[in-house]
Amino acid sequence: MTNDQSASARQAPVTVVGLGPMGLALAGTLLDHGHRTTVWNRTPGKADHLASKGVRPAATVAEAVTASPVTITCLKDYDTMFEVFDSAGDALRGRVLVNLNSGTPKEAHAAAGWAAERGVSYLDGAIMVPPPMVGQPGSVFLYSGSREVFDEHRATLASMGDPRYLGADPGLGVLYNTALLEMMYATINGYLHATALVGSAGVSAVEFAELAIGWFLPAALGPMLAAEAPVLDEGDYPGDLGTLEMNLNALEHIARTAEERGVHTDQPRLMREIAARAIADGHGGKSYLAVYEVFKNAAS
Amino acid sequence: MTNDQSASARQAPVTVVGLGPMGLALAGTLLDHGHRTTVWNRTPGKADHLASKGVRPAATVAEAVTASPVTITCLKDYDTMFEVFDSAGDALRGRVLVNLNSGTPKEAHAAAGWAAERGVSYLDGAIMVPPPMVGQPGSVFLYSGSREVFDEHRATLASMGDPRYLGADPGLGVLYNTALLEMMYATINGYLHATALVGSAGVSAVEFAELAIGWFLPAALGPMLAAEAPVLDEGDYPGDLGTLEMNLNALEHIARTAEERGVHTDQPRLMREIAARAIADGHGGKSYLAVYEVFKNAAS
Ligand SMILES: NC(=O)c1ccc[n+]([C@@H]2O[C@H](COP(=O)([O-])OP(=O)(O)OC[C@H]3O[C@@H](n4cnc5c(N)ncnc54)[C@H](OP(=O)(O)O)[C@@H]3O)[C@@H](O)[C@H]2O)c1
Ligand SMILES: NC(=O)c1ccc[n+]([C@@H]2O[C@H](COP(=O)([O-])OP(=O)(O)OC[C@H]3O[C@@H](n4cnc5c(N)ncnc54)[C@H](OP(=O)(O)O)[C@@H]3O)[C@@H](O)[C@H]2O)c1
Repeated sequence: MTNDQSASARQAPVTVVGLGPMGLALAGTLLDHGHRTTVWNRTPGKADHLASKGVRPAATVAEAVTASPVTITCLKDYDTMFEVFDSAGDALRGRVLVNLNSGTPKEAHAAAGWAAERGVSYLDGAIMVPPPMVGQPGSVFLYSGSREVFDEHRATLASMGDPRYLGADPGLGVLYNTALLEMMYATINGYLHATALVGSAGVSAVEFAELAIGWFLPAALGPMLAAEAPVLDEGDYPGDLGTLEMNLNALEHIARTAEERGVHTDQPRLMREIAARAIADGHGGKSYLAVYEVFKNAAS
Repeated sequence: MTNDQSASARQAPVTVVGLGPMGLALAGTLLDHGHRTTVWNRTPGKADHLASKGVRPAATVAEAVTASPVTITCLKDYDTMFEVFDSAGDALRGRVLVNLNSGTPKEAHAAAGWAAERGVSYLDGAIMVPPPMVGQPGSVFLYSGSREVFDEHRATLASMGDPRYLGADPGLGVLYNTALLEMMYATINGYLHATALVGSAGVSAVEFAELAIGWFLPAALGPMLAAEAPVLDEGDYPGDLGTLEMNLNALEHIARTAEERGVHTDQPRLMREIAARAIADGHGGKSYLAVYEVFKNAAS
């Protein structure tokens, strides 16, 4: 009995609303895992290439949400979600909605209120991988809000990626999402700007990536960051292996090199400014990590 | 004979000038590898803890540089190097100098000219690891300038870390250095700001690091960046898995979340601005990587 139940739960019917690059990846993966998958999208025809896998396009949002015990939505943002589902009148009442768009914690709280008013069981979440990694081993999906929805539909969620429940506060999923995305964009920008710097001397991106991504990131930077976390919680930043003053000096060299080489200078100049601010706040003899003290507060 | 020669070359005497955190790491590692190591520093006594390893403090710069066939220097910057070695009069003439401080490519070119005027064989370079990783397996040192110096003293250089020769242009070492450091600071800043974001909800740095550094960086971000390099060289950025418009939307959420949570907003606002600039330049339907086109040029 238990086995049969979980086997059928793994293949529970599911609806996907929103077929941008991410919604399409979700629908494709759910079909691959054997879920009967109904889809809806404002612009029709987006799932035509999934016809051979048995995808079921619904004509209306109401038809889509009534086709399955759970609806997963991945639209542009919260406002789009409100607009799309409110257009379906009362069809969503008593149903289960899992929302995976990006947004802010306040918007997630508003969405939880919106769902409660409509008698909808609501789980918020965020997808931490790009579309090609959806459904692949090691992909992570973050969830927050209704623990009941998470537990009841866990097997369906697990078809898309490793589901992690962060807590009952519905804003936690998008907060973690913005934090990890912030890290992603900052890292990509650092890498792209670095590539532009060496590119100014004719070094190809592939050649530089061998050192930057093949060695520096995993072998030097990753281990360094991994060792740093406890220091951040303690709020003490010993400078015996290198001071913020020394790092400002290096940031000065980076900003001046960007000027010398005629590449974009805003990013290195802001990094220099942030380090200078940390020094002005009295952290010059501490390690570079003391810029965390600057980041924790709104600029004065 | 050949074996004896290379065995003695591996343990050639060496001088280290500059005993900040990095110079001390270099001297300690050279001593551990069996080099007779002479040191000099403006402020004396910095190498006292290396006495048991047999370190030889010199009383003057002149005494230091004449004690060994090669002098490695790691001072604050190029101006400090000029000042320190010019204070030694003619002692450096005919000798070999390997400089490992940070700086800009123009400064490295000036240093090569300065050395040539004084009859000094000069190799420029950069240390791509923090002090604790010096001498450890997998640490990388970059060099540019005199190929002769690099080849002749390669065994000594190898005691400090994997020596990589980039080319005869003496500015290449510091150019790569600034590029990799730019990437390092951008990544650290992204991670620290992300930690501040989740910290605003009481999540500890250690808890967040488990996901951010333990999973996201090596399992999602690293592989994504590794796949990107050829795209950058081609200069074509297909947006079928996510457009710059979608990414601007996410960056908008990040900037607004930083405001909502009362943390520092300069970094997310600049990232949003850079993406918006790329869209204004006509790249809105391409992938996020098209911001590379913004970075390649000085801001207008
Ligand atoms: N792609 C990624 O790498 C990725 C990764 C993680 C998370 N996400 C998040 O996932 C969500 C979806 O992203 P995406 O990449 O699939 O593309 P997107 O461009 O953010 O969203 C496209 C989807 O939103 C719909 N839409 C937009 N405005 C609408 C409106 N006024 N009414 C009805 N539908 C509307 C589109 O319908 P039409 O087809 O009719 O335009 C399409 O279904 C976003 O919140 C994004 O931040 C994306
Ligand atoms: N620490 C790191 O993580 C790291 C990593 C890679 C590269 N680097 C680079 O290595 C170089 C050295 O860095 P560091 O961390 O050892 O510390 P630093 O603070 O950059 O440099 C300290 C050294 O410079 C000397 N110095 C400064 N001003 C001087 C002056 N006017 N006259 C004579 N000597 C002077 C100091 O002598 P006193 O002891 O007398 O003050 C000390 O020997 C820098 O260019 C840095 O960018 C450092």
